[in-house]
Amino acid sequence: MLKFNLYYDYENKNLEEFAFDALVKEKESKNIGYYHLPENSVKLIEELNKIDIEFEKIAVIGIGGSSLGTKAIYRLLKSNYENIKEIVFLENTDPIELKNQFSKIDKNSTLFLVISKSGTTIETISIFKAVIECFELDFTKDKIMVITDPHSPLEKFANKYRIQTFNIPENVGGRFSVFSAVGIVPLYLAGFDVKKILKGADEFFKSFFNKNEWHLIKKAAFLYERSRCYKMNVLFSYSSLLDEFNKWYVQLWGESLGKINKKGGRVGLTPIGLLGSIDQHSFLQLLIEGPRDKTVTFIKVKNFENSLKIPNISLPFLEKTDFVNGYTFNELINAQCDATRESVIRSGIDVDEIVLEKLNEENVGMLLVYYELLTSAVGALFEINTYNQPGVELGKRILKTKFNS
Amino acid sequence: MLKFNLYYDYENKNLEEFAFDALVKEKESKNIGYYHLPENSVKLIEELNKIDIEFEKIAVIGIGGSSLGTKAIYRLLKSNYENIKEIVFLENTDPIELKNQFSKIDKNSTLFLVISKSGTTIETISIFKAVIECFELDFTKDKIMVITDPHSPLEKFANKYRIQTFNIPENVGGRFSVFSAVGIVPLYLAGFDVKKILKGADEFFKSFFNKNEWHLIKKAAFLYERSRCYKMNVLFSYSSLLDEFNKWYVQLWGESLGKINKKGGRVGLTPIGLLGSIDQHSFLQLLIEGPRDKTVTFIKVKNFENSLKIPNISLPFLEKTDFVNGYTFNELINAQCDATRESVIRSGIDVDEIVLEKLNEENVGMLLVYYELLTSAVGALFEINTYNQPGVELGKRILKTKFNS
Repeated sequence: MLKFNLYYDYENKNLEEFAFDALVKEKESKNIGYYHLPENSVKLIEELNKIDIEFEKIAVIGIGGSSLGTKAIYRLLKSNYENIKEIVFLENTDPIELKNQFSKIDKNSTLFLVISKSGTTIETISIFKAVIECFELDFTKDKIMVITDPHSPLEKFANKYRIQTFNIPENVGGRFSVFSAVGIVPLYLAGFDVKKILKGADEFFKSFFNKNEWHLIKKAAFLYERSRCYKMNVLFSYSSLLDEFNKWYVQLWGESLGKINKKGGRVGLTPIGLLGSIDQHSFLQLLIEGPRDKTVTFIKVKNFENSLKIPNISLPFLEKTDFVNGYTFNELINAQCDATRESVIRSGIDVDEIVLEKLNEENVGMLLVYYELLTSAVGALFEINTYNQPGVELGKRILKTKFNS
Repeated sequence: MLKFNLYYDYENKNLEEFAFDALVKEKESKNIGYYHLPENSVKLIEELNKIDIEFEKIAVIGIGGSSLGTKAIYRLLKSNYENIKEIVFLENTDPIELKNQFSKIDKNSTLFLVISKSGTTIETISIFKAVIECFELDFTKDKIMVITDPHSPLEKFANKYRIQTFNIPENVGGRFSVFSAVGIVPLYLAGFDVKKILKGADEFFKSFFNKNEWHLIKKAAFLYERSRCYKMNVLFSYSSLLDEFNKWYVQLWGESLGKINKKGGRVGLTPIGLLGSIDQHSFLQLLIEGPRDKTVTFIKVKNFENSLKIPNISLPFLEKTDFVNGYTFNELINAQCDATRESVIRSGIDVDEIVLEKLNEENVGMLLVYYELLTSAVGALFEINTYNQPGVELGKRILKTKFNS
């Protein structure tokens, strides 16, 4: 169960139907595939059921949309399981970080998953080559799988060596691909109950298209209507386990909505991910007293499993802190979230709140779909192409000129 | 060695002398103490030299300014050493994260450092109490140290049990305290060569006040002059090892500059930390095509130690990626930084660049001081109190009302 509370209102109610209708059209068209992933991935699970190889660790070689969603779910749900296989994410081209990560990998007990939608992502293929050399991989014997677009160069390479391949539907963009093979394969193989994740995702899609999640449409309309004054959207997540989710949100929001529109105008909303309570000691001052250019969404988890307690200890001279004695850290962090939210509202900032009943598979699936749909709805109101990223091509072209070959 | 390149100019040159003079005044006054930390901390090292206890791990219990600077340096320099003692940071009130961290601590081999400037930070003292109960700490026998303001309640508590205490100078704010006992004690005890870090810091202070770092003043003047249109400052750091440094920067910049000024106006600049090359796949699209409301600073490390190479392997169908073959990841990540910087400049964004010759103690010390001084200079131009944080008090007061005691 997720609960959504909006602490604001807005003017133009016509925006609501416009946004909802646009998403219905996208869903029914064949161009945007992410709306159908939860149902389609059920077949994928049957295929995964048949896999019979032994390994203790998974190395995901992938960057951006090929790793962020998996990382988000892995981090959120890992603590719920006793025997999840560790996933190592090889993504950045940082030489020191790569070497540190390589030192933790034993090739005999590791499954290597090479993930790239285009099949030629320079970070991914370069790291794959370094892995091949460092661990003396034998394509025909060692445990390697590939996840990529149909007919991509990477698929052709995999076919040549009979490396098992899973496809990403061509009409699903990287940052909307977490419920495709991109997320489902590594999470299933690591031991997560992906059926439940997909069930939550599917339920939220259905509920939304049955008009039972109208709060989402209202929020999109509000964010669009105020986008000229509220240029930034802060996601203040009250759990350390939401840190990777924040990064997934930053990609989804930033890359989808930062666009040049049909009239040549620059639109976009800047995503900012914060963690509570830590960032109360970092960013809160700017929120409260700085310029009024942000909205804030608070996320909290109502019930954590087996929370630690703050013991009933009164330390001499520190009695001032005893007011939380006997409460759980679960209660403390949520009280901090509520207190901060109230202080932010009182200082005149527009705020909404998402409450997860607990951190389980269904709720995590729902939360991710909620953000995908919200992104699509705001994109529809901006009248932009939410699903491309033409702005990153120039840098790729310049990169090639840096090497003499 | 650090190199600074500014790719922009600005109008009002009078701002330069104004900002520089303000910092000279702050340094000479007794109100702002951080300017003198590198020289003053030399005595601290003599004191630390005398400590004779054995431990294998350090648990830092502290949040915000009490942990961010230490984390930044720990992450940046750890890989340079063979035998650094691990530091575990107990900071967030997240119940699951805390339990995970507790499971990695063995009290017999751990030194507990409780760090709080005020001495009554609710997160820090609550976690300390949980540590006391969970590990059955005996204040007179177990390895505990305290770092706090003189005469704080935490110091009084420590004195009662003869727990070794180090003080933070009262005129040094939390987010400017990394070169005080807050950062120096844990880093020294973990095995870092803090003398070299302080040497780099001291050199940069001297160089700045000798007017040899005028680029810093120019940058501050530019950011101030354009603050109404460029509301966000992106730090695009090209190394995974800079991730914690980015968080330190976010606190320093956000909490220092987000203020209500003397005339009642809301001022501030919003800090955003990104990591290259990862965030080319996340945030770059928004930078290039989205609204023109950001400046970007690129940080790169010229020479990493012993960089991995991209091997000369040509994979069938993937020959398109061979243009980086034979180069090091060091060369690739820096070429990515340069290519991205050029693409961002070409799209009309104002950019500057910081190049660290390598990741060593002196350069890290310099980089942190550079950002402290830059923050002070922009704060001086805004004519605000850069060093307080009145906006966070309301939330603290509301928090108390959430508990019936």
